[in-house]
Parts: sequence; structure tokens; C-alpha cells
Amino acid sequence: MEHLLARRARTARSSVIRDLLTLVDQPGMLSLAGGLPAAECFPVDRIRQAALATLEVAGPLGVGALQYGPTEGDSSLRATLGAHTGAGAARVLVTAGSQQALDLIARALLDPGDVVVVERPGYVGAIQALRTCEPELVGVTADADGLDTDELADRLAAGLRPKLVYTVPNFQNPSGAVMAEPRRRALADLADRYGFLIVEDDPYGELRFAGSALPSIAAFTDRVLRLGTVSKVLAPGLRVGWVVAPAALMGPLVRLKQAADLHTGSLAQRIADDILRDDEFMAEHLQRIRAVYAERAAALAAALPPGITAATPTGGLFLWARVADHGGTAFDAADLAAVALQHGVAFVPGAAFDLDDRPGPALRLSFASLPPDGLREAASRLGRAHQALASTSHSAFTGNASVA
Amino acid sequence: MEHLLARRARTARSSVIRDLLTLVDQPGMLSLAGGLPAAECFPVDRIRQAALATLEVAGPLGVGALQYGPTEGDSSLRATLGAHTGAGAARVLVTAGSQQALDLIARALLDPGDVVVVERPGYVGAIQALRTCEPELVGVTADADGLDTDELADRLAAGLRPKLVYTVPNFQNPSGAVMAEPRRRALADLADRYGFLIVEDDPYGELRFAGSALPSIAAFTDRVLRLGTVSKVLAPGLRVGWVVAPAALMGPLVRLKQAADLHTGSLAQRIADDILRDDEFMAEHLQRIRAVYAERAAALAAALPPGITAATPTGGLFLWARVADHGGTAFDAADLAAVALQHGVAFVPGAAFDLDDRPGPALRLSFASLPPDGLREAASRLGRAHQALASTSHSAFTGNASVA
Repeated sequence: MEHLLARRARTARSSVIRDLLTLVDQPGMLSLAGGLPAAECFPVDRIRQAALATLEVAGPLGVGALQYGPTEGDSSLRATLGAHTGAGAARVLVTAGSQQALDLIARALLDPGDVVVVERPGYVGAIQALRTCEPELVGVTADADGLDTDELADRLAAGLRPKLVYTVPNFQNPSGAVMAEPRRRALADLADRYGFLIVEDDPYGELRFAGSALPSIAAFTDRVLRLGTVSKVLAPGLRVGWVVAPAALMGPLVRLKQAADLHTGSLAQRIADDILRDDEFMAEHLQRIRAVYAERAAALAAALPPGITAATPTGGLFLWARVADHGGTAFDAADLAAVALQHGVAFVPGAAFDLDDRPGPALRLSFASLPPDGLREAASRLGRAHQALASTSHSAFTGNASVA
Repeated sequence: MEHLLARRARTARSSVIRDLLTLVDQPGMLSLAGGLPAAECFPVDRIRQAALATLEVAGPLGVGALQYGPTEGDSSLRATLGAHTGAGAARVLVTAGSQQALDLIARALLDPGDVVVVERPGYVGAIQALRTCEPELVGVTADADGLDTDELADRLAAGLRPKLVYTVPNFQNPSGAVMAEPRRRALADLADRYGFLIVEDDPYGELRFAGSALPSIAAFTDRVLRLGTVSKVLAPGLRVGWVVAPAALMGPLVRLKQAADLHTGSLAQRIADDILRDDEFMAEHLQRIRAVYAERAAALAAALPPGITAATPTGGLFLWARVADHGGTAFDAADLAAVALQHGVAFVPGAAFDLDDRPGPALRLSFASLPPDGLREAASRLGRAHQALASTSHSAFTGNASVA
């Protein structure tokens, strides 16, 4: 029946990372590979309380939490998010996680061949959602200060005409980088000048554990679709995210959402709203989970073995590490990933986050899923794997198998 | 910013029915217009119990119900549905209601211009999901015995080559019709012969309150994508549905689902599974809600005013009524709908369920959302609206304003 598939389905690819994750599910394996938040940070008791409150208020008929609801989202949750983002409820569309917001945006805006700028390295899930609409994806470098707006400006001056520029400005996945404020302003200026839209995906912004928050790109231009989610601050299993969109795009997005799944789960929306409106709880909860991630980030950064370096991140879930030069030979972190699995530790090589899988020395290490002791043991295994690989490589290049 | 919209977003239309529903939300209005199940039929207590059990089992870390989960769906729920449908867990993909299954199927299979056969009248939500992929929609008559397979066979013999045929074989929305067994076999034979796929959408099959269940079309051919949902048997707000797909199509559907929203809400899936596996509860619950709908269907059918006729349905939520001839003039139920609103009763005219909004004498009357007394009052108001319209029409056509 494969001959009946549509073009977009023939080209759809599974996430390399999801495929890798099926390999690391072995006893004793320590994984730095996942992109999952720490389960210890889920407010299970508060979620249980919210579920009960929601179903009590729903009363014998359970209408609010159990009946079909508005496509735009639960009105109370929209009000909460509209206030939180400062955009007002009318510009909020509740989605099944921010992944669905990305999918709806792609479908609302992209005809085949339309140009979309993505960060390299950048978030794979976004690239996957975008690809179903068959755009031309153009990579622009993202470094320690985020998307390189000088490079983007040069490309635009040379004639590049994107419809969308996609960025994760806070604690980017995979690099953990934060886009510097001057670049946020510069990106906004370019959007106004060249008429493209910015997708500002911000799942990690609340997970800052050092330094001060920077303004949203939306503070500098109206040409922003801003995505948020409860996945990293409450729990991903709720599948509650949102997009704050320019008013002119709300109608098309809502119609596509209606066709896609009618609306996001009512019970999950009510649970999310009940907790997000509880300012006292949220303040305490965010403080607690930021401390958990700060401790883990510091533990992993401090334990990195010789030859593998990284800056300590200031938020998020990821540490972007690099393997030092191997005697002048180009290093491919994919080789290290294979040896690391044999040593009982998993991570995702940086190439998985690039458009064309270029080999390179970068590693994405998640510090979220293991406690500090586990992270130290994982780093130690990574060091042994690195040593083993170095000795093999050295042998291979010198032809002297006895050199360890 | 509208000039940036993709072609599919420029053509996406809002549901006429959803638009209408915003008009009927007035005090005192009795609505036969919605497609919502009766809130009295939601098992609120059992859902609360399932939510608590799920979050207890999830333990202090809440992993199962709150963490990211497999794109295919919760493994226990897939096993439950695989057993229930007889297809096995491997062919089950859990979706955000069956609406999302429709959307994913459309995206997996339809390139612009591909032919899809839909029933006329037929389910509007399906047409809306299909339209985002820009197929050529071809309507084939559905009558009191469901999709007219003779008409379809003629069209196929004349050269029609659909990729998909979409049907709701049990208690169809809007007509309430059940596809006769010989037609199920005939449709399966045509699929095998001409190589198309059948989308068998079955949200209402469990709501049979008279007669015996007929075999699924999937009993007669492998070329079936079979959709199910808990929306009508438990609660739509959970947004838990599924598709049982041919094995060869699972990969593409799962990849599109991954790009669309990663996975369906974990908590909602666990709640649904906990209840669906409780055979004793489900037997009692289904018996109870079937009795509710049977009583309502009978009450509305018996109370229909003179000049409006319908067969009493044997299941589902809808009664498909017709207005008798008005002195030879073609009757448009949309005219009656407008007058009915003034008399405090709302319904959806049949044209809303056709591809090209052809005026006609049919009315979709939902008996689900009102108790029997409310239905009798609604029918009475419908009668007064019909009388008022008849006198006006008569005046208009005779030119004699004094004839009442």
C-alpha cells in the first residue's frame, strides 16, 4: 500500500534521537541522550489536587472538563496565558504541546519551496514539523550568543527571502545558548525590514538558574509567533502548549487546529490552568526545579573528563560539549557515541542537530535526567570511552597498535 | 500578514455548524443543533477514580502519566484497543480523538488533486480535515442503508479512481443511517478490485439501542483504516481516539503524528485505559447510556410536528428529518432554521452536510443534548416555526397576505 502514500509522507523522517533512544533503554545504561525533563520535578501532588478540583467543579455533569470545548482553548487558561505573556487572551491559541503549534504554523504559512531559516545547530523536532510542508530549509549559524544575525543579514542582503525564521532564544536545544539582547533587537529589525515572521520557541525560558531574563523578541516587533508549553515547568504528559500569534493569523491557525483535532484535551487544560494561576505555588515550584537543574548542570560540567570541554549553562536542560583536537584529525562525535554505548553511557552527537548531519566534535549532554552522582559516573564513563577511542584512533593513524 | 498564508490556509473554512453554534448560545434557546454527547452520560465518578489511580500508580515521580511517552500511544492502552478490535496492538495508533486520525490519514495519503469519495450527506469534520490536503472530493449518495455502493460501482466503472473512500457506517452523522451488510461487503470488494483504501469512521457504533451490531467493513478486506474514539462512550474532553491501520501504513502515520504533536496526552490515555479495561463497569455504563439515548430518540421522534417526518433511529445521536412538500415548491430547510431560531429552537439544515450546500428539505436533529421534556418542547416550537413559515411562504407564492 506504500504506493498510495502522499509525497510528504514518503519524505517524512523519524527523529534520529528518538531512534537512538530506543537503543539506550538497556539495564545499567546511563543516559545523557534524552531531552526529557527530570521526573523528580513533576509536581505530582499538585497535579492530583488540580485534577480532583477540576472534576469536582465539573460537577455531576462534568461539562467543563469533559465535554467538547472551544478550538481556541479553555477560556480561563487563555486568560491566564494572555495575562502572563502580556498579549491578551484573544491572541492565545492553546495547542497539544508547542510541537503542535509548530505544526500548525508550518501548515498555515508554508507552501512547498517556501524558505525557512533554522538555526544550526537547532531543534530537531521543529525541523521535522517544518519538513512535512516541504519548505526549503536554510541553516544560519547559532553560536554561544544564539542565532548569528550578522550572517542572517548578509544572506538577506544577498537575496534570501524567508517566510519564517525559527529560533529557540533561551537555553537552546541542543546548545543551551541564550540569544544576546542586541541580536534579539537585530532579528526583530530584520523581520520588519524584510517582512518575514519569527517563530520564537521558548520551552526553557522559565528554567533560568543564573543571570537575568532577557526580553522576548516579541518586545521588539509584532512579527512574532511566540510558543510556550507546560512541558518543562509542569509535565510534558499533559500535552498543553500555546502560541501567541499576530491577530491577523489567529483565524487561519484556529481553522487548521479545528481540522487537526478539534481542541486540546479539556481536563489537561483545566489542570494546567489551576496550577499556573496559583502564584504562590508556582513561585515555590519554579525555585525548587531551578535549584535541581542548577545542581545537575554544575555537577556534570565539573565532572567532564580531560579533553571534553563545555561552558556551564545558565539554564535549561543541556550542556553543549566539544571534544578537543585529536592530533589534528577531524573528530566525529558519532564515533565517540558508539564507543560510549559500550562503556555504558549514551549521548547525542551534535551532527544530529544539523541540517545535513555534518560530522563534528560537538556533543549534546543532557544533565536533566540523572542526579548528580549519576552524572559524575556518566562523565567518568565518557572519559574512559574517550580514552579508548583516542588510543584506537592514535593506533590507526600511527600504525602502532602498542601505543595506549 | 495574510499575504504570507499558505494555499491550504487560505482555503481552509470554518465549520458552518461551529459558526451556527455560536449563535444558539442564548438564554431559553433549545438546541437540537449540536453534535455533542449528553453530559449526563459522562462517567464523572469513574473518571475521577481513574485519574487518582493513574496518579497514584505514577508514584512520586509520576513518570507513566506525566512524562513524554511513545508516539504510538501508551502500551497498555494499545494492548486494550488491539484486543478490543481484534487487530493487535501493533496496528493501533492512539490519536487526539478520531479527528486527528482523519487529519493524519489525509496527510499521509493525499497529494493535491487526489480523489476522495465522501458520503452525501456526510460528516463535515472529515471534509474539513480532508480539505486541508486539497483533494478532489467526490460525493456519492448515502441513503437509509448507508453509502450507495451501486452508485459508487458505476462511478468506478466509468473511470473514477479514488485513493480513499470515507464512510461512517454506524448511525452516521448527520443521517443516523446504518450501512447494510451487503453494502459493507460490496464496498470491501470494490476496494480490493480498484485498489483504494476505506476510512471506516465509527464513533457511534457502541451507541446501538435497537437491533444487532453489523460486522465492521474490516471483516471483509484489509484495505481499511478503522477509526474509534472514547468521545461518545466516555467523554470527548479526554481527546483520546485511535486508528487501526494496515501494517504498511503504520510507519508513515506514526512519523506524521510525531511531527504533529509528539504523542497524545499521557494522563488522558491512562484514564481511558483504566476504564476501558474495566469490563464490568463498561457493560453497566454502556447499558445505561444506551437507555438514555433510546429514550431521547423515541421522545423526539414521537413529538415531531405534522409535516415533519423521520424514522426512529436505532442508535447514535441524530435523527434525520424531512419537511413535507410545500404545495410543490422546493423547500429549503435553511429557511426553516432561521424562523426556528426566532421560535427558540435550533437545528442544522441538511445542506450543511453536503459538498455544495444544495438547498433541500432535510434537517439534522440531535436528540442527545436535551432530556425528553426538553425535546418535546423543542419539537413543539419547531412545529410553530414550520406553521409560521408555511403561512408566510403561502402568502409569498399566492400574493395573498391574509391567508394564514
